[in-house]
Amino acid sequence: MTTSTSFETLFRPRSIAIVGASSNPLAIGGQPIRYLREKSFDGDVFPINPRHAEIGGLKSYPSLAALPSAPDLVVVAVAAAMVPDIILEAGRLGVRFAIVFSSGFAETGPEGEALQVKLESAAEEGGIRIVGPNCQGMMNIADGVRLGFGVPYGLDYEVGGTSLTSQSGAFGNSIVMGLNGEGVGLRHYVSTGNEADVSTLDLIDAYLDDDGTTSVGAYVEGLRDGVRLRQIALKALRLRKPLVVWKVGNTDSGARAAASHTANLAGHAGLYFSAFRQFGIIDVDDIADMADCLKAFAAPELPASNRVLMVTLSGGAGIAMTDRTARYDLATPPLGDGLFGDLRKILPAFASVSNPLDVTAEAISGGEAFGEAIRLAGQSGAFDMVAIGLAAIGGVAATRAVTAIADMARSTGLPVTVSWTPIDEAARKGVDLLRDAGIAVYPTPARCIRGLGALWRFAEARKRLVQMSAVSSPALTQGGSTDLTTLNEAESKAILRAAGIEVPSEKLVRSADDAVAAAGTIGYPVVLKIVSRNLPHKSDIGGVRIGLGDAAAVRAAYEDIVAIPARLDRSVEFEGVLVAPMLPGGVEVIVGGMCDPALGPAVMFGAGGIHAEAFGDVAFRLAPLTRGDALAMIAETKVADLLAGFRGAPPADVEALVDLLLKVSTMLIDQRNSVCEVDMNPVFVRVQGEGADIADAVVSVTSAGPDKGELQLLRPEPAREE
Amino acid sequence: MTTSTSFETLFRPRSIAIVGASSNPLAIGGQPIRYLREKSFDGDVFPINPRHAEIGGLKSYPSLAALPSAPDLVVVAVAAAMVPDIILEAGRLGVRFAIVFSSGFAETGPEGEALQVKLESAAEEGGIRIVGPNCQGMMNIADGVRLGFGVPYGLDYEVGGTSLTSQSGAFGNSIVMGLNGEGVGLRHYVSTGNEADVSTLDLIDAYLDDDGTTSVGAYVEGLRDGVRLRQIALKALRLRKPLVVWKVGNTDSGARAAASHTANLAGHAGLYFSAFRQFGIIDVDDIADMADCLKAFAAPELPASNRVLMVTLSGGAGIAMTDRTARYDLATPPLGDGLFGDLRKILPAFASVSNPLDVTAEAISGGEAFGEAIRLAGQSGAFDMVAIGLAAIGGVAATRAVTAIADMARSTGLPVTVSWTPIDEAARKGVDLLRDAGIAVYPTPARCIRGLGALWRFAEARKRLVQMSAVSSPALTQGGSTDLTTLNEAESKAILRAAGIEVPSEKLVRSADDAVAAAGTIGYPVVLKIVSRNLPHKSDIGGVRIGLGDAAAVRAAYEDIVAIPARLDRSVEFEGVLVAPMLPGGVEVIVGGMCDPALGPAVMFGAGGIHAEAFGDVAFRLAPLTRGDALAMIAETKVADLLAGFRGAPPADVEALVDLLLKVSTMLIDQRNSVCEVDMNPVFVRVQGEGADIADAVVSVTSAGPDKGELQLLRPEPAREE
Repeated sequence: MTTSTSFETLFRPRSIAIVGASSNPLAIGGQPIRYLREKSFDGDVFPINPRHAEIGGLKSYPSLAALPSAPDLVVVAVAAAMVPDIILEAGRLGVRFAIVFSSGFAETGPEGEALQVKLESAAEEGGIRIVGPNCQGMMNIADGVRLGFGVPYGLDYEVGGTSLTSQSGAFGNSIVMGLNGEGVGLRHYVSTGNEADVSTLDLIDAYLDDDGTTSVGAYVEGLRDGVRLRQIALKALRLRKPLVVWKVGNTDSGARAAASHTANLAGHAGLYFSAFRQFGIIDVDDIADMADCLKAFAAPELPASNRVLMVTLSGGAGIAMTDRTARYDLATPPLGDGLFGDLRKILPAFASVSNPLDVTAEAISGGEAFGEAIRLAGQSGAFDMVAIGLAAIGGVAATRAVTAIADMARSTGLPVTVSWTPIDEAARKGVDLLRDAGIAVYPTPARCIRGLGALWRFAEARKRLVQMSAVSSPALTQGGSTDLTTLNEAESKAILRAAGIEVPSEKLVRSADDAVAAAGTIGYPVVLKIVSRNLPHKSDIGGVRIGLGDAAAVRAAYEDIVAIPARLDRSVEFEGVLVAPMLPGGVEVIVGGMCDPALGPAVMFGAGGIHAEAFGDVAFRLAPLTRGDALAMIAETKVADLLAGFRGAPPADVEALVDLLLKVSTMLIDQRNSVCEVDMNPVFVRVQGEGADIADAVVSVTSAGPDKGELQLLRPEPAREE
Repeated sequence: MTTSTSFETLFRPRSIAIVGASSNPLAIGGQPIRYLREKSFDGDVFPINPRHAEIGGLKSYPSLAALPSAPDLVVVAVAAAMVPDIILEAGRLGVRFAIVFSSGFAETGPEGEALQVKLESAAEEGGIRIVGPNCQGMMNIADGVRLGFGVPYGLDYEVGGTSLTSQSGAFGNSIVMGLNGEGVGLRHYVSTGNEADVSTLDLIDAYLDDDGTTSVGAYVEGLRDGVRLRQIALKALRLRKPLVVWKVGNTDSGARAAASHTANLAGHAGLYFSAFRQFGIIDVDDIADMADCLKAFAAPELPASNRVLMVTLSGGAGIAMTDRTARYDLATPPLGDGLFGDLRKILPAFASVSNPLDVTAEAISGGEAFGEAIRLAGQSGAFDMVAIGLAAIGGVAATRAVTAIADMARSTGLPVTVSWTPIDEAARKGVDLLRDAGIAVYPTPARCIRGLGALWRFAEARKRLVQMSAVSSPALTQGGSTDLTTLNEAESKAILRAAGIEVPSEKLVRSADDAVAAAGTIGYPVVLKIVSRNLPHKSDIGGVRIGLGDAAAVRAAYEDIVAIPARLDRSVEFEGVLVAPMLPGGVEVIVGGMCDPALGPAVMFGAGGIHAEAFGDVAFRLAPLTRGDALAMIAETKVADLLAGFRGAPPADVEALVDLLLKVSTMLIDQRNSVCEVDMNPVFVRVQGEGADIADAVVSVTSAGPDKGELQLLRPEPAREE
């Protein structure tokens, strides 16, 4: 596909041809002509339809070739079979973009898939970029570009800085209308359909390049390129244009039957949300939720940290806010003695002077106490964001409150959100004034906090940007091979050792004598373990014998183990017995790695033993990891409490664990063409300073696939703490 | 307090006196007079103010005593100090209810608390019931009773069957207005303030008795009476009047430092939400969420089970719905072969014939396919509820779709919810038609599912009602004693044994000789455990020695153990050594019980060892438990997977576990005046048919408190499966 074409031509075409134009303003080929006129599009519009001389008051042409000059953009609304030839022709004429409404392509089955391949070839040959097929169109709200079919293409919107993309046409319509209804100002919208060429990521990237776009919303069913997602996310952080993504399809993670715990635990959705958190993408799960997050970014500044002050006129609103803060990693520190004293002096006696700060309705209706209080609190330096619940005040009190809030926001630079149910003209004007000051207004206190949570998610990731800057590096293998070979424990550990990961010194033996000899070298007591690539859960069938204190015990254990395969009612490949040292134990964890077909290599950490799967206590990060990522993923799990020293136990060697996670990350990148899945389970993390022991490990490999070209890859620079 | 007064007098007073009436229509004492007139209240209104002869066109009286006859209800809006005397006077005159706006009572500190006690005595003496003090009032929407101050008391509302209560006055205002904005029809609203007398539970109970109330919403910061909550919840289930409760104050569960795991794990909020689930109370966490749930109950019938069919015009809406189903325990089974074949014949070729069923926009715009499809699917018997996403259709298609949906709902009796963004007059009419048919309309597909989830929560609990019917029984001790004594392991197990709970036969010894003798009786190998009420985590300090195979080992272990107290840098009461049999092991779980100060006795179950606390894998149910409750609470945890037989292991003895949970429940009720907290941790659940072993146990007791009277208590009847 061509990649040099600027999307500016898609967003602001100066001339548009509509192939399959209809004189029926309700028809798919008639709606764009009607909407372009209604919204006063000021470029050229060329209907193409050989059966009409004129459509909607415009001269109609029999074909693209008959046009006086090549248009910037072609809309295609004809039967699927005709589309590839039209695209080929358009490309030859020098058209830059086509939007293909026609359905009947890959979404319908094998025949349609073949037709879509033909379409893709036509686009490539013609050097033209395609949106769709099977899409509902696009809009540039400010410039009257309304190239779609369906209700929202004919409506009026508040113009703003949010550009949108949706992988569902019809549902995208609901999102566009819903966001508008929630007060989000819109700029561009594209329904991407089958994404034969232009993808959601292409569009997000183009939106980031668009000066008028200040934030991006996306409805996503699936993404194809994890490396690109990372690059775009970092670009969004750099440009301070938040990505607010609704990723759907999150319940069905079960179908995959992967060889490793890691891959089983990744599920599809879990990995997406880990990646979103890692790169500061704000994930949402409904239209109002998307609106709440987008609106918050009207704030002129991002928060420096996560400390939220809540100010309300009633205890209830404050409690409702407090309940929501933990969900978004927001802190609600106390006021501090100085501020407490100052506020106590200003506020009514029955005000609750704490955080949440219930100033009472009297403070707002009776004079300047409210304004003075938020000014003092805002300037105290104790908070990074402020959520204010105004309940249903109106009249003079509303005007006074709004002025005070806007002044405070301006003078302190703190992001502020307000919940308010405007009930009179003064209140409605007040809402507009707040919006003008970059203060988002929500219908409920909880949603105020949702907005601040979005700001913090983005700001927190931006603080880590210095550790995430991009350098040139080979591409990650995408696509996740399907023919994996699972190695036995001895082979798996050899792979780890080769990658610089320390594993206990063990010896693979095939006789009792050799076992005894190996035990002598390793030192008693020892452990004997059956080695077989068909027995991932070897301890369940008696294949692991621990605490063998002398030669006789080793010999007896060896004989027991070799007898196991015959006992089992399935075929087991016996590959020997591993003689290993007894490990001193420690906090039991699992460390893993895998390559997701969509998102690329990812590192996993979690509670060890059966608890990773039984309790789902795991965290993922896309590789390569920074040191900060490794610490963050450990902190995300509940086993972190055990590592920190549960019930008075000494703290475990988290440093060694971080080191191991970083080495796994490096191995996944460096050996991306061979190593597909890694499970180290259990790993025993000893007490601080004593390291961690990899007790067992399983590696799955594939035959080397070719590198898919050289791309810009994101690799961590040496960690610099801010 | 009197309990015989019917709340009908509060909701529909025929005569009202306003003490502290003001001629200023903005004053707290002026607003009710204004609103009563504006909303055409047709009873008598008597302003009481000695300084005016007339207020708002009404004759003003100098005192209550000066009135021609005693009013049904008095509103009090004067300084706090004057209130007790006014209440006393009102009571003497025969007034039935007072609503006290005045603040300056328990919410302000010790002086106010004393004043509130005085107020309570006055009410009791006068036989008058009080709403408040420190409340904002009440409304009966249909009858023009507007006795409050603040914006919402002056607005117009859609009249409906939802009655509301709020423990926050100002935030309650936001809830009232928010619900109205979301299309919830309202009936009564009461702001309960300090609840000196009339409580949230009193009001909910009264709403349940009120014929016109069809559902109840409550904003709750705390409740005082768990037994009453249960009774009311069961009454609500019986009357098919759902309770939709927003319980706030859920983040700060940390302050409690209880002796037991169970109490630590209960937190405050966790126990509330367990109780809500147990008794079919629908918990919500924002105003729109409350509206979504209340609206759904317009459905004429409740679902028979949890199988949801999703019908949409686009794939996206279906995915958004599917993502939400798991959160509310909803199932989305496939269509089945017969229905699949039938639908395939009717629907366009590019429709996605599965669940979610994407009929495509063509099926709705092009004719009767949509109607035919939902009729077939509805009648198939494969589904209990239907969620339909209509996106933004309008015009003729909207009218046709609405007719088909209403017909299907009527003919099948299935609850149906619809998401729709109405964009024209036909659509707006369609929304009204759906509402008339008892079909709730939501702005987004996800919220459709939220509504169905609420229906199922309520319907599921109703199915269990037969197991929950009330019989007469002694009250549970409320209030949770604060002076607990923690018993040592031997004493704790004696308490359990006395309650009919089987514990391993063990012997407490105080010499090595006795230990050896006991071991001989019990049979080798044995376990020795230090006994001390100061050492709850005895294995951490070497106080548990396992696998002792002979007398010498027992003797040595005994000597080691007795030396422990001297080694520790704190005072430890050494009370002997327990000689116990080696247990064969099994799935490690924790079973516990506690008495919550608000909710009463509760049983806990969770993952054993340190995992209960580290992973928070626990479930609670209020006692007494039914067999179904016990099974449900096990199923709620992740350790259920281990019990079912993880990775091919044989299933564990869940029956024995259920039996144990029921015995703990009985013990908590029967010994409610002595046993306060119980931890059995770990309990080893052996394989099916072999029972469960309580390895360790800690019981905390209090000196016997008096029974607080005899009440109607809910006790399970012998389980009858439906």
